[in-house]
Amino acid sequence: MSDRPRDPWLLTPGPLTTSETVKAAMTRDWGSRDAAFIAINRRVRERLVQLAGGDGTYICVPLQGSGTFAIEAMIGTLLPRDGKLLVLINGAYGKRAAKICGYMGRAHVDLEWAEDQAVDPRRVEAALKGDAVITHVFVVHCETTSGVLNPIAEVSQVVAAAGRRLLVDSMSAFGALPLEAREIPFDAVAASSNKCLEGVPGVGFVICRRAALEASKGNAHSLSLDLHDQWAAMEKNAQWRFTPPTQVLAAFEQALREHEAEGGVAGRGARYRNNCRILVEGMRALGFETLLPDRLQAPIIVTFRTPADPRFRFESFYDRLRDKGYAIYPGKLTMADTFRIGCIGRLGEPEMRGALAAIGATLDEMGVKSGTPAPLKRTA
Amino acid sequence: MSDRPRDPWLLTPGPLTTSETVKAAMTRDWGSRDAAFIAINRRVRERLVQLAGGDGTYICVPLQGSGTFAIEAMIGTLLPRDGKLLVLINGAYGKRAAKICGYMGRAHVDLEWAEDQAVDPRRVEAALKGDAVITHVFVVHCETTSGVLNPIAEVSQVVAAAGRRLLVDSMSAFGALPLEAREIPFDAVAASSNKCLEGVPGVGFVICRRAALEASKGNAHSLSLDLHDQWAAMEKNAQWRFTPPTQVLAAFEQALREHEAEGGVAGRGARYRNNCRILVEGMRALGFETLLPDRLQAPIIVTFRTPADPRFRFESFYDRLRDKGYAIYPGKLTMADTFRIGCIGRLGEPEMRGALAAIGATLDEMGVKSGTPAPLKRTA
Repeated sequence: MSDRPRDPWLLTPGPLTTSETVKAAMTRDWGSRDAAFIAINRRVRERLVQLAGGDGTYICVPLQGSGTFAIEAMIGTLLPRDGKLLVLINGAYGKRAAKICGYMGRAHVDLEWAEDQAVDPRRVEAALKGDAVITHVFVVHCETTSGVLNPIAEVSQVVAAAGRRLLVDSMSAFGALPLEAREIPFDAVAASSNKCLEGVPGVGFVICRRAALEASKGNAHSLSLDLHDQWAAMEKNAQWRFTPPTQVLAAFEQALREHEAEGGVAGRGARYRNNCRILVEGMRALGFETLLPDRLQAPIIVTFRTPADPRFRFESFYDRLRDKGYAIYPGKLTMADTFRIGCIGRLGEPEMRGALAAIGATLDEMGVKSGTPAPLKRTA
Repeated sequence: MSDRPRDPWLLTPGPLTTSETVKAAMTRDWGSRDAAFIAINRRVRERLVQLAGGDGTYICVPLQGSGTFAIEAMIGTLLPRDGKLLVLINGAYGKRAAKICGYMGRAHVDLEWAEDQAVDPRRVEAALKGDAVITHVFVVHCETTSGVLNPIAEVSQVVAAAGRRLLVDSMSAFGALPLEAREIPFDAVAASSNKCLEGVPGVGFVICRRAALEASKGNAHSLSLDLHDQWAAMEKNAQWRFTPPTQVLAAFEQALREHEAEGGVAGRGARYRNNCRILVEGMRALGFETLLPDRLQAPIIVTFRTPADPRFRFESFYDRLRDKGYAIYPGKLTMADTFRIGCIGRLGEPEMRGALAAIGATLDEMGVKSGTPAPLKRTA
């Protein structure tokens, strides 16, 4: 591999930079119904339940596809056909859950916040009090649209107190931010292989409360996305119903080993918090401003507002950083011009400092004096 | 990699043995919204349309997940909500399509044959004549349940003559058996990366007639499986809506290069036919019998009937062959005790002869004198 330039560091919300050992785990052929692969699958599922603190009462159901497939499967399987979902929305991923309900023809009511605000448990409490028909609540753990951390512990308490069920999208947080079933009552949490667990993309998973999963037979709108059917088949012979992405699973197992070696959720989270701190401090020193105040910022991905200097153009900024070996991410906000830089993946202090140096050099090349944005016009 | 025994040869319907170069293509990190990855995606999509002879009038929509996800997406997107599907069933994959319709609540009527028979175009013609409400017909190209080759050219003529639309499941045949849009009128054909194209599992694709895809907006029952939405997003910025399995796509591009270097569909098909011939001749020499007569046998996977000798136990046979470096496949028939051996993947004459030698040695170890099965009791 020394005959080609190294791949750029991916400062994105995923797919991410992975370790060489995770990638090397893909260079084998596995029979999907062979004992060796079945053992990988079992170990991955068990470890994921452990990471959620769900031993004994929770079940991990892996699913082929991207994280959105797992989210849709979670809602489609666990929300009864006559259920009603309260969708908490403060970004694109909340909106997507509402869209999924629309496709399925399931009843939902949406509660919205501005993209730079966290969801507010008191409004959730009021909404549940006001609508006895709501059976389930959907919340995004870290909204990567902005990078905001939602207070899922508080939300979970409100939901539990009202006797409703919680579905969590922890796609971009699982494995780096704590999510303990004993402390945060949830019916299911969905995430994927290629975010904070630092595997490669191709498989998602849903960690379900066993009783909720057992009760979900016949709910799903889709054979492919039926978690009950997926689970029932795996219980029978430990095999997948339909061809699994074998190499992706093998890489995932290796990634979980490296996650454990780093100290699990605490160790992984500590590295990401350090990455985030270095990034934010360094960007502020260049004049940039974060969209979010520090108290709302998850150490996953940071949204920066576009500099006011008219010489700044994102496409050129992106290309020049890419040429220097760093791939960043466009913004996804509707409320302001922004771009995003991720803190996750196989990155540490040297890579974050390298990215900052490249950003400084790029501003100089572009003749941009400062990263300072124009004053924000509040629209929401 | 020299410090571990080599992976077993996979004589299965997939995931398959892939080349070292295909596997090596996975050892990189790609940003899913980066130009380098977008270029891979474009080349893969274009090449797949070429392979179906669909240039200009067909569009390839790739989809995350296993082949079944692509099949469900094809039916859910292209069969209108008020449409009706005639499902041709001579094995598990036809049955699965009917099950998918059941999940979606779409009207369907099933036409069934025994598992060791090909579908009969005359019965299809009669069914279409007898039911004017049927809008679409679903057929499996090669039913891997038995390995039978269905006469899709004849079926397509009957469907076109009746003014109906054809959906083809060519999962286990695409890339090795001819399927030319100019000769076989179809609205869509679904297949995946990890069968005859010899990539790794994790992505499927549907090659759609452009006009049919354009007319399909709003049909789909699922956001994740909505091919129209997937296509519309890709048209806009050449990117995937949701995280693609980047390494799987990179391996797929390499696999398509190697497919082309082997002479495309003709070259790949010739190798598989030779593999199949060697396998069947060698197994017959050991006393085994194929389920199918040669004229119905696709050169993809061969079903053998279980030997009558009571000393033959499939689990032991499998394990002993596996220890010798060959992974075969259990049977899936309801009509007879069988097992299956695949002819596809990065295998040639040496591997097929090696498998035959291992099978002969295993019979000796087990004290099984001959592979000859008991007479078949016809139940269907």
